[in-house]
Amino acid sequence: MSSEVPTEAKQLRSTVKPEGMVEVAVVRVPIPRPKADEVVVRIEATPINPSDLGLIFAGADLSRARAGGTAELPTVSAPIAPEALRLLAARVGQSMPVGNEGAGTVVAAGSAPQAQALLGQVVGVIGGEMYSQYRCLHVAQCQLLPPRITPSQGAAWFINPMTALCFLETLRREGHRALVHTAAASNLGRMLVLLCREEGVPLVNVVRRPEQVTALTALGATHICDSSQPGFRESLAVAVAETGATLAFDAVGGGTLASELLVAMEAAAARSRPGFRRYGTTIHKQVYLYGSLDTGPTVLQRTYGLAWGVGGWLVTNVLERLGGQETARLRARAAAGLASTFASHYSAEISLAEMLQPEQIAMYGRRATGSKYLVRPHPRS
Amino acid sequence: MSSEVPTEAKQLRSTVKPEGMVEVAVVRVPIPRPKADEVVVRIEATPINPSDLGLIFAGADLSRARAGGTAELPTVSAPIAPEALRLLAARVGQSMPVGNEGAGTVVAAGSAPQAQALLGQVVGVIGGEMYSQYRCLHVAQCQLLPPRITPSQGAAWFINPMTALCFLETLRREGHRALVHTAAASNLGRMLVLLCREEGVPLVNVVRRPEQVTALTALGATHICDSSQPGFRESLAVAVAETGATLAFDAVGGGTLASELLVAMEAAAARSRPGFRRYGTTIHKQVYLYGSLDTGPTVLQRTYGLAWGVGGWLVTNVLERLGGQETARLRARAAAGLASTFASHYSAEISLAEMLQPEQIAMYGRRATGSKYLVRPHPRS
Repeated sequence: MSSEVPTEAKQLRSTVKPEGMVEVAVVRVPIPRPKADEVVVRIEATPINPSDLGLIFAGADLSRARAGGTAELPTVSAPIAPEALRLLAARVGQSMPVGNEGAGTVVAAGSAPQAQALLGQVVGVIGGEMYSQYRCLHVAQCQLLPPRITPSQGAAWFINPMTALCFLETLRREGHRALVHTAAASNLGRMLVLLCREEGVPLVNVVRRPEQVTALTALGATHICDSSQPGFRESLAVAVAETGATLAFDAVGGGTLASELLVAMEAAAARSRPGFRRYGTTIHKQVYLYGSLDTGPTVLQRTYGLAWGVGGWLVTNVLERLGGQETARLRARAAAGLASTFASHYSAEISLAEMLQPEQIAMYGRRATGSKYLVRPHPRS
Repeated sequence: MSSEVPTEAKQLRSTVKPEGMVEVAVVRVPIPRPKADEVVVRIEATPINPSDLGLIFAGADLSRARAGGTAELPTVSAPIAPEALRLLAARVGQSMPVGNEGAGTVVAAGSAPQAQALLGQVVGVIGGEMYSQYRCLHVAQCQLLPPRITPSQGAAWFINPMTALCFLETLRREGHRALVHTAAASNLGRMLVLLCREEGVPLVNVVRRPEQVTALTALGATHICDSSQPGFRESLAVAVAETGATLAFDAVGGGTLASELLVAMEAAAARSRPGFRRYGTTIHKQVYLYGSLDTGPTVLQRTYGLAWGVGGWLVTNVLERLGGQETARLRARAAAGLASTFASHYSAEISLAEMLQPEQIAMYGRRATGSKYLVRPHPRS
């Protein structure tokens, strides 16, 4: 192992306590020596994705977060509601590492040629435990980034780009020709606007604030519907009819949005073939819920016939079905687009210790579009 | 055309009036002469299925039904709530024939050999407009019934038997090995108990009253869960775990039942592979809503990870995908089982005129298991 790799380093851990608290702490952990087909990556940048927040804070009430520990090894605690605690039974008492993805430099490598080939390179990494200063990973968990892509640019190389790419894989496999995306002003939403334009796939963008309409228009989006406006349902109906969208990916999850998307799709389908149909049209309409910005129940009005589906959607499950070769192709495409189609935008950069400050948590824990944070696990040199 | 076929006969019609009423009436209609590949069937028995009720009464308030017309050609009217009326725009002002299926004797036939071959035979028929004394139909809409099967036995030859058969086709095509059925004490539910036993497919029966447990047990059902009992969720969890059911067909539609089925399936899946999974198991869980006994919204709690789907299900859409040859095989199997696996049970037999009596409507309009009516369009001879 290279002399520049320390024997231990800092890492973030999250533990759900049986009494109904989550405790998040910076701890010191040993850095394993890499096996033949492993490398040690100095993690230089790692994003806080909505999917990370659920694991870090376990649904706790962040408005009641309390800081603790030392300046060197801080902690933060927050209470979890009893009904949320029941769903967490399987993780109570476990100190869990967190952080889905990141990027950094390979500082040590095992003896295998594919590991040695990465030594000194900047790689994107996936596989959890990324809120760490160093990670020992299998070479398959690393993606060589293109020349001149920095760890900051490459930190969010996997989840959002692969999600956008897999939205279109799902569209093609299930025979749709256009799609709707909600929470469309997010980093993922911006990537999808650019990707759909490249691929010639019509896209309806649903946003939640007027200023997001401006931002997406500037990016070149053509169909944008603002759910905060009184004419939302009408504008959605028009956009869905114009594009022929019969598929939607929804980040909101709770409430009636999925049902409203199906109403718009069925109205467009019925308009193209007039007449009364007791069971609605036979055109299949599908909404996938890939997020839970609204954690309340999904409420389906069922006023759109019987040719419809609503379901959960997870990028890793899609990749599992696509298989290794197709996944490798999509990963390479994601990496190649990091400075263009798949560029991420952050509102702030913070350290591991700052992740535990209640005032920072209040900002990045909002799950609001435009407040995405990048974590820098090492002090600036 | 044979001399025993009159030139006109009685038929039931349903009309949604623009002022927000449904009017159902017995009218006289001409009987067409059959073309070469058509036959005229004297309809001797036709069931009132839940799927017929929606078309006959258009969601009107049946407690406010008012009889009218003459003894010979009666009518009945009932008011429709404004929100229900909006969904009926495409049928306002249309006099619609009703009745999905039935059985009777072929009394006239066109010149084609396949039409002539049916003359004098008892056939099951499908294709709407069955609350009629006579129907002119294409031979493809007729299924020759086995010897000694009466029109009463054959009246419900299509919808319930084909639905039960297509439940199992869906199970196989989507890779499930066991299933849950709700409203399991219905005629369809009883058929499914017998069919699943024949096919060796484990079945969990969800019923809504204690006496239905007794009835299904007598039929040989092994997994029965009564949703009216306080221990329902626990018994459902046990039955789902024992059978490995990852698919459900739900006739209720509204409320939280679909969500509870998914909770039970995910709990069973998680138990077979312990440990915390942030996104739940990867075992796909599917609930199809094929009915709307509860017309309220479907409420999904989303506490079962991301590998799940809920959707509408319609037997004709499944048959469309299966194709003509497979449909013919299933139809022949349905007909062959009419005295055994696919036997129907009725609580009363009524005439076309009696269908319009408010006291009869109060009974057969309840959509309650055990109150299924058979219509006899001709006076007893």
